Amino acid sequence: MNKLDQPWSDKLRKIDPYVAGEQPENDNILKLNANENPYPPSPKVEAAIRSLDFAKLNLYPDAGVSGLRSSLAAYYNVSKDEIFVGNGSDDVIALSFMAFFNSDKPILFPDVTYSFYKVWCSLFSTPYKTIPVNNIFRINPDEYKGPNGGVIIPNPNAPTSIGEGRDFIVKLLENNRDSIVIIDEAYVDFGDYSAVELIKEYKNLVIIHTFSKSRSMASFRIGIAIADKELIGVLEAVKNSYNSYAVSTISMTAAKASVEDEAYLKEATAKVIATRDKTIKRLEALGFKSLPSSTNFILTAHDRLAAKVIFEELKKLGIYVRYFNLPRVDNYLRITVGTDKDMDRLLEGLKKILGK
Amino acid sequence: MNKLDQPWSDKLRKIDPYVAGEQPENDNILKLNANENPYPPSPKVEAAIRSLDFAKLNLYPDAGVSGLRSSLAAYYNVSKDEIFVGNGSDDVIALSFMAFFNSDKPILFPDVTYSFYKVWCSLFSTPYKTIPVNNIFRINPDEYKGPNGGVIIPNPNAPTSIGEGRDFIVKLLENNRDSIVIIDEAYVDFGDYSAVELIKEYKNLVIIHTFSKSRSMASFRIGIAIADKELIGVLEAVKNSYNSYAVSTISMTAAKASVEDEAYLKEATAKVIATRDKTIKRLEALGFKSLPSSTNFILTAHDRLAAKVIFEELKKLGIYVRYFNLPRVDNYLRITVGTDKDMDRLLEGLKKILGK
Repeated sequence: MNKLDQPWSDKLRKIDPYVAGEQPENDNILKLNANENPYPPSPKVEAAIRSLDFAKLNLYPDAGVSGLRSSLAAYYNVSKDEIFVGNGSDDVIALSFMAFFNSDKPILFPDVTYSFYKVWCSLFSTPYKTIPVNNIFRINPDEYKGPNGGVIIPNPNAPTSIGEGRDFIVKLLENNRDSIVIIDEAYVDFGDYSAVELIKEYKNLVIIHTFSKSRSMASFRIGIAIADKELIGVLEAVKNSYNSYAVSTISMTAAKASVEDEAYLKEATAKVIATRDKTIKRLEALGFKSLPSSTNFILTAHDRLAAKVIFEELKKLGIYVRYFNLPRVDNYLRITVGTDKDMDRLLEGLKKILGK
Repeated sequence: MNKLDQPWSDKLRKIDPYVAGEQPENDNILKLNANENPYPPSPKVEAAIRSLDFAKLNLYPDAGVSGLRSSLAAYYNVSKDEIFVGNGSDDVIALSFMAFFNSDKPILFPDVTYSFYKVWCSLFSTPYKTIPVNNIFRINPDEYKGPNGGVIIPNPNAPTSIGEGRDFIVKLLENNRDSIVIIDEAYVDFGDYSAVELIKEYKNLVIIHTFSKSRSMASFRIGIAIADKELIGVLEAVKNSYNSYAVSTISMTAAKASVEDEAYLKEATAKVIATRDKTIKRLEALGFKSLPSSTNFILTAHDRLAAKVIFEELKKLGIYVRYFNLPRVDNYLRITVGTDKDMDRLLEGLKKILGK
């Protein structure tokens, strides 16, 4: 990546970064490649920002994110010291790697999963071992066993979209009494089991949530961790060793307004779920097989045309979906669920490409 | 910090975090302990936020921070690929440690300086060596020489408030041709030499600026690095290995409006400088000796009363200044320059404490 011909070049970090979905600037592009929510944030978010005292924005934010943490504690029915807030869930996970994965033994995660995990392992020199998902992309919790440096699994998993239930999580926790187990529930509001209730019983469990998906707040960068207060204390100490003021005042104010508008969250996620289930059926009629989704995206493969070809043809039509040039999923497309209208445009495009 | 009686306790990070100035919630408190600017951000910041399309805040921010970087490139007269933007300058420095300080040799910084540097060394296991400032708190660039893992110096230095000129920086760079030299110019807008012009000549020089001081935007979390494009490329790669979307859409929009309002910046900093210079004289009349300040704060010691006592007595009066229980500076107070009215209240308080 960098030239190595300078006297200081040996002191520079060599690393392959995470590559996010493209962010095209053209307004006519249909963006179904970053699992954003097609609906705007709650109107209460805008109202909260507009009523801010702008003359006070010269001051540092509350490093303890106290107001938002109080609202979150009430929402999740946990105590305030069981909540941590960071600059998006990627920040929270990165800090969690530094806080919880300090071992010579490898951490464990699925081979098909969020591709950032490997990047953090590289950044922090964290040893890891991937465990293959089975032929229908399911994770077996009994394969996450024995000495390890920690476990991190998204539930629902991405990009598979498959969610697992309470028994799965309990088994995983029972198998890993000596390590920190992180469940990354980025997509959980779209319809599957959340393990937040288990943090009282399993003091080694960390749940990660994001405001970027169900809450339509990707632009604000809010992610949270929910765990026993001892783990939250370690996460706070690491955060205060990295960047004490990680969350801007406007973002924490906006996030608080979102948390306090539960009805809007329910309504927006219900719309996405309904569109998703309809879209899976419509895709099937075109020869696509999709995995059972508990998320706001669909992982799907066509019975005839290669995923890469469809990806490129869709792009020509101004429709951006996600294609992973990675083992096991390289014949799948990951398609974010948009509005019904967005899905009409997607399906029209696919029909054209497939000559139907 | 954490109990060590759980089976996973050995995997938790043990670390002493940075401790920031207190953020009291009471409105009647005069906060002179975090070097915030007493004036609000440019009115154009508020206007830019109010005219945002809130319905689009469901989308991820531009990870490349393109619009703001273009404005910054024009402002600093550098090219866009010589600019990096992060989530406050603490984030930028933390990423810089990971990007540039990868050596078994110690990095060098002054013994009296920003206390976060040691915390990052601990977090990233970066070896370091501190070099004592002299008896009048000046840094000698000829003591920063010989094999090292890198150099980081604030200019002006904090908490000493002393700024050094072009010759100092050039000597430092000439002495360190084989390492990355970071100059943390957090306070430079309050009156001293900025080394941005030197990045063309010294391709191992990294300049850090913040929006939290002169731009009155601490709540927004914007920090930047300016350096040769190769170094910026490494910083980008590390950022994209930590948290790709580090800066919120609103913060980058607000920061862009601030950069484009140079007149406001000049006016606000001129007011702070005028108040600072008056305050140093008024303090002198009460028996305080202050270091020559090129910043928006004053490091000062009284000829009779201990700094810790004054700190505590001021607190009782609702006036928060910063006291460091650290070698060499434990008889000094660091006082942020507020408005003229703020300084009147401070001086009244001091007179009371000193019985004058």
